[in-house]
Amino acid sequence: MKTYSDLNTPERILLGPGPSMVSSRVLRAMAHPLLGHLDPKFIELMKEVQDLMRYTFQTTNEMTLPVSGTGSAGMESTVANLLEPGDSILIAVNGYFGERLVDMAGRYGATVYRLDKPWGEVATPEEVDAALKVHPVKVVAIVHAETSTGAMTPLEGMAEVAHKYGALLLVDCVTSLGGIPLKIDDWGIDIAYSGTQKCLSCPPGLSPVTVGPKAREAFHNRKTKVANWYLDLTMLEHYWGDDRTYHHTAPISMNFALRESLRLVQEEGLEARYQRHLENGKLLWDGLEELDLRLIVPVKHRLPTLTTVAIPEGVIDAEIRGRLLNDYNIEVAGGLGAFKGKAWRIGLMGHGSTIRNVDLVLAALREILGR
Amino acid sequence: MKTYSDLNTPERILLGPGPSMVSSRVLRAMAHPLLGHLDPKFIELMKEVQDLMRYTFQTTNEMTLPVSGTGSAGMESTVANLLEPGDSILIAVNGYFGERLVDMAGRYGATVYRLDKPWGEVATPEEVDAALKVHPVKVVAIVHAETSTGAMTPLEGMAEVAHKYGALLLVDCVTSLGGIPLKIDDWGIDIAYSGTQKCLSCPPGLSPVTVGPKAREAFHNRKTKVANWYLDLTMLEHYWGDDRTYHHTAPISMNFALRESLRLVQEEGLEARYQRHLENGKLLWDGLEELDLRLIVPVKHRLPTLTTVAIPEGVIDAEIRGRLLNDYNIEVAGGLGAFKGKAWRIGLMGHGSTIRNVDLVLAALREILGR
Repeated sequence: MKTYSDLNTPERILLGPGPSMVSSRVLRAMAHPLLGHLDPKFIELMKEVQDLMRYTFQTTNEMTLPVSGTGSAGMESTVANLLEPGDSILIAVNGYFGERLVDMAGRYGATVYRLDKPWGEVATPEEVDAALKVHPVKVVAIVHAETSTGAMTPLEGMAEVAHKYGALLLVDCVTSLGGIPLKIDDWGIDIAYSGTQKCLSCPPGLSPVTVGPKAREAFHNRKTKVANWYLDLTMLEHYWGDDRTYHHTAPISMNFALRESLRLVQEEGLEARYQRHLENGKLLWDGLEELDLRLIVPVKHRLPTLTTVAIPEGVIDAEIRGRLLNDYNIEVAGGLGAFKGKAWRIGLMGHGSTIRNVDLVLAALREILGR
Repeated sequence: MKTYSDLNTPERILLGPGPSMVSSRVLRAMAHPLLGHLDPKFIELMKEVQDLMRYTFQTTNEMTLPVSGTGSAGMESTVANLLEPGDSILIAVNGYFGERLVDMAGRYGATVYRLDKPWGEVATPEEVDAALKVHPVKVVAIVHAETSTGAMTPLEGMAEVAHKYGALLLVDCVTSLGGIPLKIDDWGIDIAYSGTQKCLSCPPGLSPVTVGPKAREAFHNRKTKVANWYLDLTMLEHYWGDDRTYHHTAPISMNFALRESLRLVQEEGLEARYQRHLENGKLLWDGLEELDLRLIVPVKHRLPTLTTVAIPEGVIDAEIRGRLLNDYNIEVAGGLGAFKGKAWRIGLMGHGSTIRNVDLVLAALREILGR
């Protein structure tokens, strides 16, 4: 049988939509010898991870835990637990991940209403209000930071509108948590999920989820069992709650890594971290415009954590990204869905959001594009 | 806000039901700087992981991939993809994980028939045949190695019986893969799942799954979308297949770790590995009986990878396990479900299955029990 060599992969500069650059501190923590998942020392660590997640989410929600899967598992955990067959949801769709929410909600038997916006644009509270007036629903879902377009939907005022119609507000903050301001409690968000491999700069494999009192009550008022066993938050709340009832085996090493990445967030402080992401984002935007490249999202709604650049006429997408990767060891991503072949996505997230990386990617693009 | 110290956890000898001991080679591989999940170098690595999984499963199944969650996610991926509302399944229940299959299958709307055996005992092909005669079903599910009881259900002859009635054979090999003989193709198993944190000695976070041609055909003949998005194998086969279509972001570091743990399996060779597990298991059994402890499962069906010991009269479960953990840094587990308070579970899995660990746990038990 064929044998395989030692792991010997290039050291990339990860400036795509995630995984982002990971600090050596996080890698070291992840490589720590394992504990059992019911070891009292691991249970202490679970509490610490939860505390640090609450800080990062800016919430006091007791039910704040990392789901044992990537960001999409976190997304599905919220959908699966909120929705029973016959329930209804309004989803603001302005990119790939809004579409994913539509797909998932349909699988759980919900009636799905869409509030469609062109890719790169964002829905407003007024538009959500108008949609809810026609179709009141159980849940309103908004993607805070659309990883496919780089657009940021402002959340202020969204909860008031949803609550006016008795709906819960569900927010996707996969590419915002730890990178741009996000205030779960102040903004009245009822339930939210994120991923570890974006602005938290932890490897992919866990999904931070936070559930407020009203969403939790909705879980407990379900008439049917949650259709998804692995992501059943009414069981997970006991595993991650005081009783620590066995559910599945938490990914031990990933939790070591998440704890360390959240410690880094805490050490830097959220405000300083947001500021760093914003400043480096602006540096990148200025540099890209100097290269005569067009940024797709208007500055008002542009994410500093993920920038979409229109691929210039006559430039071959795969060729440029291939040269960035092979000659410079820099990863940037192509477009998804409607933006396939039309956009590059450049991420400046967490540990990867540095002046040095901005300079590097700009210098490489300048050389490759000959500008 | 409270701050948290550097990770500073004790170095345990993990002799419970998993996570098992992890080699430093695997920890080092896991801590390697990340690649993007669509990086050509990562895609090469995905192929290698799949090849090594095929060797370990003893299969040529093209659809062999690690699901991005722990063993329970692997379990659910098979249930969710095989079963549509109205489908039927026969589950041999002889422990906690058989019960879990029942719970999951019910959530997907299946009609569930049970073949109940007392905990610690196993079902035979004749009993499965008799059950199928009464209720022919779409799927027969067997737990190869019941982690809750330490009983091994022989699989030879099971596929013939299932196939005679037109059913597919689904096997849980969470605590068997890489530890005891398991021949997916020779034994005619249609679909199987495992976990990484047992006999493969990789941290928890992935679940190896293999799907044979008939089960795959059943996926493609579904009338409805798979009710679970994250675990939809009809989408995952494209992410892990030649087209590498984006689905979710694979846990990069966990795949680095899995690759290294599977390389260790390949280097040792499956036969040598089975032999080592068997010999160390027997050593443990002899030593426990010398301590006048009773082994719950008859030797004929006893797993060398996980041994259940009856807790002697008058001995307080938590006290003994607490002393093992605190004074000796050794983790063994208590019982689950029907065995709660009645049994200890001692795992000798993968990297943890060594003469030294057998001697250690026996010496510690001798001292603590005063025998």
